[in-house]
Amino acid sequence: MSSEKIPDIIIGRLPVYLRALQHLSDRGIQTTSSQELGGIVGISAAQIRKDISQFGEFGKQGTGYSIPFLIEKLSHILKVDRVWEVAIVGMGDVGHALANYNGFANRGFHVELVFDNDPGRIGTKVGDFEVHDAADMAERLKQHKIKVAMIAVPAASAQEVADQLVKAGVKAILNYAPTSLSVPEDVHVQYVDPVTHLQRMTYYL
Amino acid sequence: MSSEKIPDIIIGRLPVYLRALQHLSDRGIQTTSSQELGGIVGISAAQIRKDISQFGEFGKQGTGYSIPFLIEKLSHILKVDRVWEVAIVGMGDVGHALANYNGFANRGFHVELVFDNDPGRIGTKVGDFEVHDAADMAERLKQHKIKVAMIAVPAASAQEVADQLVKAGVKAILNYAPTSLSVPEDVHVQYVDPVTHLQRMTYYL
Repeated sequence: MSSEKIPDIIIGRLPVYLRALQHLSDRGIQTTSSQELGGIVGISAAQIRKDISQFGEFGKQGTGYSIPFLIEKLSHILKVDRVWEVAIVGMGDVGHALANYNGFANRGFHVELVFDNDPGRIGTKVGDFEVHDAADMAERLKQHKIKVAMIAVPAASAQEVADQLVKAGVKAILNYAPTSLSVPEDVHVQYVDPVTHLQRMTYYL
Repeated sequence: MSSEKIPDIIIGRLPVYLRALQHLSDRGIQTTSSQELGGIVGISAAQIRKDISQFGEFGKQGTGYSIPFLIEKLSHILKVDRVWEVAIVGMGDVGHALANYNGFANRGFHVELVFDNDPGRIGTKVGDFEVHDAADMAERLKQHKIKVAMIAVPAASAQEVADQLVKAGVKAILNYAPTSLSVPEDVHVQYVDPVTHLQRMTYYL
């Protein structure tokens, strides 16, 4: 297995397979097939078999996939068989929703720090988290060795926040601000913009 | 141009190009190149040229793309040269954030109706919107001929809500609940799950 050569589009589907496998596992189901998985995630069974086979022989003809085994393998490939501490910058509605989101546990992430620059918010609590002053962000991120962060600030501030995150050593940014970010090549950015998702669907209507 | 044959992966990139073009346009810029666009969105110039050329000859060698022209063409292709009325189901943190999101305007969408099933929320205001009782959802959606909806309810309720949306004629669902949905073939679903986005990046760390 040479992970360098796996196309990003395949990597992008693995978390979707992993989520579906974890749902099946939560229901006590131990084995599945590419047909069943395909039905859940809306991807053809052939594509799923092809994607998974890029990483090794994880299934058996006739008996399908062992769910615990495949969860273990995919978690290892995606490096979520550990826990990544995450920072959230911006405690408006989106930041609140992320801080209170209960879907991170057991999926490789734990919110460790939350920040805002509004004096009215700094020092208050959001869920279990104390809101820290964004002015001290770089120092705290370095202290906690944070590599993963989510940006939930207005579009006009997003690039400035991204620059600070990069300087502090963050290597993966999930950006909720509706704007494109410029980052160095070794920093990864994913965008969550409801409009791009909606526009992708209206094409077909 | 035969839109039936364009791969979905290309369709998925068009909204990203459109967003970047609109940013350039907002700054008063009239022309751009695939190099400039590529720098903004993090996709190679060659890929951008190839993607856009699927739909016609929209750029000129040497002079690049007219931004207003390309915005018009991409908006038409994505069917966002009109306004789609949108419903939001679930008025927790995520629903609040979506109802207050100011990025829908001029991008093809307008929030028309918001719903919740919590008696403490029904009848209250979220931003400009009155929260309607989810029990009356199907009827209201049909009255307003809503085809596009966003689900922001807990995972356990998401499938039930999706079933109601489908029955009421909704054809495009943006699902914020961290669970996969089963819908008929003519209904499109996109997922917004922070963890799948994060996992896609940790692979590279």
